[in-house]
Amino acid sequence: MIKRNPHMGALPANYLFQEVRRKARLFLEKEPGASLISLGIGDWTASIPQPIVQGLAEAVQDLGIQEKYTGYGPEQGIESLRALIASKMYPKHIEAEDVFISDGAKCDIARLQVLFGGSVSIAVQDPAYPVYVDGSLIKGVGRIIRMPCTPENNFFPELVRADILYFCSPNNPTGSVLTRDHMEQLVAFARKEGSLIIFDAAYRSYIRDDALPKSIYEISGAEEVAIETNSFSKSAGFTGVRLGWTVVPRTLKYADGASVHQDWKRLIATLFNGASIIAQKGGIVALQQEGHLSTTTWIDRYLDNARLIKQTWEQLGYPVYGGEHAPYVWIQFPGRSSWDVFQTLLEKAHVITTPGSGFGPSGEGFLRMSAYGVPENIHSAVERIQRAFS
Amino acid sequence: MIKRNPHMGALPANYLFQEVRRKARLFLEKEPGASLISLGIGDWTASIPQPIVQGLAEAVQDLGIQEKYTGYGPEQGIESLRALIASKMYPKHIEAEDVFISDGAKCDIARLQVLFGGSVSIAVQDPAYPVYVDGSLIKGVGRIIRMPCTPENNFFPELVRADILYFCSPNNPTGSVLTRDHMEQLVAFARKEGSLIIFDAAYRSYIRDDALPKSIYEISGAEEVAIETNSFSKSAGFTGVRLGWTVVPRTLKYADGASVHQDWKRLIATLFNGASIIAQKGGIVALQQEGHLSTTTWIDRYLDNARLIKQTWEQLGYPVYGGEHAPYVWIQFPGRSSWDVFQTLLEKAHVITTPGSGFGPSGEGFLRMSAYGVPENIHSAVERIQRAFS
Repeated sequence: MIKRNPHMGALPANYLFQEVRRKARLFLEKEPGASLISLGIGDWTASIPQPIVQGLAEAVQDLGIQEKYTGYGPEQGIESLRALIASKMYPKHIEAEDVFISDGAKCDIARLQVLFGGSVSIAVQDPAYPVYVDGSLIKGVGRIIRMPCTPENNFFPELVRADILYFCSPNNPTGSVLTRDHMEQLVAFARKEGSLIIFDAAYRSYIRDDALPKSIYEISGAEEVAIETNSFSKSAGFTGVRLGWTVVPRTLKYADGASVHQDWKRLIATLFNGASIIAQKGGIVALQQEGHLSTTTWIDRYLDNARLIKQTWEQLGYPVYGGEHAPYVWIQFPGRSSWDVFQTLLEKAHVITTPGSGFGPSGEGFLRMSAYGVPENIHSAVERIQRAFS
Repeated sequence: MIKRNPHMGALPANYLFQEVRRKARLFLEKEPGASLISLGIGDWTASIPQPIVQGLAEAVQDLGIQEKYTGYGPEQGIESLRALIASKMYPKHIEAEDVFISDGAKCDIARLQVLFGGSVSIAVQDPAYPVYVDGSLIKGVGRIIRMPCTPENNFFPELVRADILYFCSPNNPTGSVLTRDHMEQLVAFARKEGSLIIFDAAYRSYIRDDALPKSIYEISGAEEVAIETNSFSKSAGFTGVRLGWTVVPRTLKYADGASVHQDWKRLIATLFNGASIIAQKGGIVALQQEGHLSTTTWIDRYLDNARLIKQTWEQLGYPVYGGEHAPYVWIQFPGRSSWDVFQTLLEKAHVITTPGSGFGPSGEGFLRMSAYGVPENIHSAVERIQRAFS
């Protein structure tokens, strides 16, 4: 039979969140009665607001009407959605043609890794969302540099030269946000060193301070060095609906002057068939006035949750980061291992979290808590934690 | 800036169907009034039957109700859909756990190519659906063998040893169907030579002869050498909805005995986030009695279309293949080039087709015509062809 792709062997056996689920399952086998609250995975919990449901429903009804039925859409997405994203998200910087609609940021990152292949070097923030490293390992990337992001450097790392620099802001898992100054340093560095930035802005809707940039393209010159990916998962509850986008500006060139944009277009047409037309039509409503307001209300509540979780740990005397312009709280447990604290919380408070070490070595000793949850669950979780840790 | 992935340079500039669209656009610029009928791309044209629309609509409504809202689903798909596919499609051969739900066969083939990496050899039927070759080229596969499928060998090629054998039946583009005897030869060959089969069964619903196998797993021993991929696009009109699945049996092992199934599960969890929950719930209805019957009616009409197209060319004196258990008709134009006939049909009959040479060198001199179309269009197309070619 066929030989195993050696790059698959380079991966840890389980994807981080699979491993978290496995541990929770094992615990439930031991204590079948336990009612666990999951603040592990960053999974939206509020129902989708009615205006957006309406948009999705109309798209479904249209599929049942002969005159309105449509089959394959353009692989790059519906024109009007691309235009809406360009005008709402990047009013001065990006045009519709540079926006590619997808079924989610994770899937697009995987495709970007296919685009750039296995012979590049990459640098990631450490800790980081596992897909940057795991996906690169699968493609055979040999040189992976981790740039530690810690309280000591305000979660902005010393920049290291690599072909691709992965950055995520607001950050998953630390909840830290790049300032304009950080982003300017990053873009200047990439321009000087000839690096490409893959900028993951999936949590931009959580930024509540106008001084903080929401897109890398707010920094002049970024359109020549950066790709930005985003998602409707954490802005409109589309985690199960599946919709995202990636911006690949036409101004982005390879070393030889060829167009990255053209290659991306070719790759998308060859290996992808577009996001669901239903999701795309829902996405259009989510970006319009009424839809946008309705989801903003939910995001505000998640931010309230984050604040509550943050305060709880602060009152218990632990150093806590993030949770202000992000749905993630990053808690430090000096002298303890992440999986150890994870297990304590699971067993003593019946709360599922995510061990910081799962995001990279610099996450060791930290725990990520997600602020996604209905208020009752968040309040119960917080009470249980107070009881278990005080 | 970053260097271009050399494998991207190995691709022709345009994906086949992009190129077809480009030529049609150029023609319309010359003759803006022309009303073109597209029988090029294999794109379902009938609206989705009401029972299935109902299923999709319910899924949408549920997302708007707090008690029913769900976020991320399992990356492998909803359990009940996996079970339904296993029991309906592979009653004796495959269990739910081996079925992975996806957003389409094309996307899954791309992910399978990531799984097996760039250092494998592949063999494809020639002509073949472009994604097998193009997707492999992007991953850096260096050894690609084309196995000519022609009228002379009844479209069943001489088998050649490779790590991966791509087969598609009913075939896109030739419309030919593998007999049980063919499939037995194929499975025996793969077992003997240690090849893995990637079997694309996206058109299985078009088979109307019980003697023809609808799945590779009907052949004993295939579960140890074959992966099968499939789609709701050509069985339920989900081309824009996006839903498919891939079977990776637990019995499938690498040369060293490790599990391909485990690696696939790991890869899917890492690089994919599941198909849209809306599409999945529609898929459940599409497989149930009422949904299934409603789509079968449409497939019957497409088969009628195929027959009509086939007869038309036969009456005009051209050798014609396929179009019996497949939505594609494969017409031979001895002594002419495919793009040349494509252009003639475009200019003289205003009908868009797909040049056979776009599917591989053995497709030169052929044209693929798709049977997807509303009856009026098919009848007009046929009349125009009769006028232009008689």
